[in-house]
Amino acid sequence: MTTDLLALTEQLCGVPSVSGAEGALADDVEFRLRAVGPALHIQRIGANVVARTEFGCERRVVLGGHLDTVPANGNASPRREGDVVHGLGAADMKGGLAVLLALAPSLGHRRPRFDVTLVFYEGEEVADEFNGLRRLFDESPTLVQGDLAILLEPTGGWVEAGCQGTIHVRAGFDGVRSHSARPWMGRNAIHRAAPLLQRCAEFEAAIVDVDSLEYREALQVVRIEGGIANNVVPDRCTVVLNRRYAPSRSLDDAVAEVVAFCKDAGADDVEVINASMAAPPNLMHPLIAELTGAYDLPVRPKLGWTDVARFAAHGIAACNFGPGDPELAHTADERVDRVTLDACLALLEAFLGLR
Amino acid sequence: MTTDLLALTEQLCGVPSVSGAEGALADDVEFRLRAVGPALHIQRIGANVVARTEFGCERRVVLGGHLDTVPANGNASPRREGDVVHGLGAADMKGGLAVLLALAPSLGHRRPRFDVTLVFYEGEEVADEFNGLRRLFDESPTLVQGDLAILLEPTGGWVEAGCQGTIHVRAGFDGVRSHSARPWMGRNAIHRAAPLLQRCAEFEAAIVDVDSLEYREALQVVRIEGGIANNVVPDRCTVVLNRRYAPSRSLDDAVAEVVAFCKDAGADDVEVINASMAAPPNLMHPLIAELTGAYDLPVRPKLGWTDVARFAAHGIAACNFGPGDPELAHTADERVDRVTLDACLALLEAFLGLR
Repeated sequence: MTTDLLALTEQLCGVPSVSGAEGALADDVEFRLRAVGPALHIQRIGANVVARTEFGCERRVVLGGHLDTVPANGNASPRREGDVVHGLGAADMKGGLAVLLALAPSLGHRRPRFDVTLVFYEGEEVADEFNGLRRLFDESPTLVQGDLAILLEPTGGWVEAGCQGTIHVRAGFDGVRSHSARPWMGRNAIHRAAPLLQRCAEFEAAIVDVDSLEYREALQVVRIEGGIANNVVPDRCTVVLNRRYAPSRSLDDAVAEVVAFCKDAGADDVEVINASMAAPPNLMHPLIAELTGAYDLPVRPKLGWTDVARFAAHGIAACNFGPGDPELAHTADERVDRVTLDACLALLEAFLGLR
Repeated sequence: MTTDLLALTEQLCGVPSVSGAEGALADDVEFRLRAVGPALHIQRIGANVVARTEFGCERRVVLGGHLDTVPANGNASPRREGDVVHGLGAADMKGGLAVLLALAPSLGHRRPRFDVTLVFYEGEEVADEFNGLRRLFDESPTLVQGDLAILLEPTGGWVEAGCQGTIHVRAGFDGVRSHSARPWMGRNAIHRAAPLLQRCAEFEAAIVDVDSLEYREALQVVRIEGGIANNVVPDRCTVVLNRRYAPSRSLDDAVAEVVAFCKDAGADDVEVINASMAAPPNLMHPLIAELTGAYDLPVRPKLGWTDVARFAAHGIAACNFGPGDPELAHTADERVDRVTLDACLALLEAFLGLR
């Protein structure tokens, strides 16, 4: 039976799963996996679902995808136009989840080249403490072990190697409250944040070469908050910055750099909200080399942080390969098309020896 | 019976009355006024209480004070140190309310030079639509008519003449959302707000001479808000500015100027949240001249907006004269002392012919 991947993607988009509210989608995924039968050993932990084959193969490939999406952006309801599904999560990454779910029935009646672990997890789009894969590595690390991990993050048919690290810091500016008719009696905390905003707006991020791949870094203000009442000079302003850095830098160096950047711009305090290491491209690893070589897949660097870094930190080679355009992730018009979905499934089936 | 004004101020500070929650304090005030007896005609409208004598005097003096305070700033509970009360509202303006309440018993057993109207009202520290005096002028204008209005806003023993106008605008900056690892696909709305913040921080407000009084203007960012999620380049940032302008400018000119300031700094849209006219000093008005002349009171301009502008707009000469240091209003350490309270009461009693 061939799965209609576009219809399945649309169905998955129809189950809302903004970070923190992935339960219904996890239920749906678990239900579909249990329908495959005894070949899949299924475990549910929170809103995380892991399905493993136990054929006794020499090597194991982990295929993973996160269930959650960012908040809706006028695109909460999926819509289909011809062979394209538009809607929240279509690219990041319900198309990828559809491919994983479509692989499952094959695993029920054919022995693959590798044992396979399918991992569906919650909390990838928010702070690391909520990340379901982190919880699995902490609580049941054997469940997610393997020789290669492929994350079906949207890569547009490319293998996206490694990933950039990501750091969020909250820079705080203090002031002194006063009546806004007598501001010289106070000190305006929002005015004090102006230089940091200006430096971020003018910041020219580097392009860094690692293993002949170009990692384009970034530094963005993603939140700002300040003010207590409309007649009061504000005594506090906080600015959240997101730094993306190439795998050439260590996590510690990258954190020190962004903290210094904020301090130099006048911040009174800088809190590191989260800091995730980058992952090296790992293109010489035999299984990654086979994946890219045998199917002649184009390779480029992954600019966004993904859980390949978590696999890498646990000694598991990992790369990103999934349907959908990564540049559409988190935008109002994210979408995925049928050809892309079918091609991704076909390639993974071939690599796993399922066709 | 002499009222202990310091104890009364402390009691009033002990009844929380942040804007929007003035009911309990209005109840307390109404109870105290009704205890005076038949000489006071009392009306309660919302959290506004008006007490009027009807002696048939030729002229009428309105004495007013607002019941509400700004939000607490670590000073919610009043505390007394010797002859000083510290706490939210002590200066702005529960000390003034205490003086008004202490005047009331005298009105019950002695005929003053003028008929007297005591007005206690809600919603002065927030948007004009919530202002209780506005409601009284709209719904029962005869209740608040008079030949002179004195507001007991904190003036530190000075007569503060006229008042500056105040304008709040919300400047909006649009952007385009994208994943924060690929910011070049989007446009950061918070970064776009940087020039406006910078210009506000650098703005040198004018000092304007009106009737030999120096009005010091101001322009402050009082709120900022932006950001949707920590991994998303934000598509919206809003900045609230408060402009204070001297009575030399018309309201229309002042509004046009601040809107242009925001547009010049790149704002995509500018909403005028509220705009209140300034009030002229009116120092030549006979009753204001008598108040300042007969008691040799020092005169200076009022920098903050007060409801003297509302009285002026209704053709009623008005000035500010009340206990407490205006520079402490809205600060964490606002306070008032016994000598100031007693002096204010004594002067008003003398002016009204009650001693």
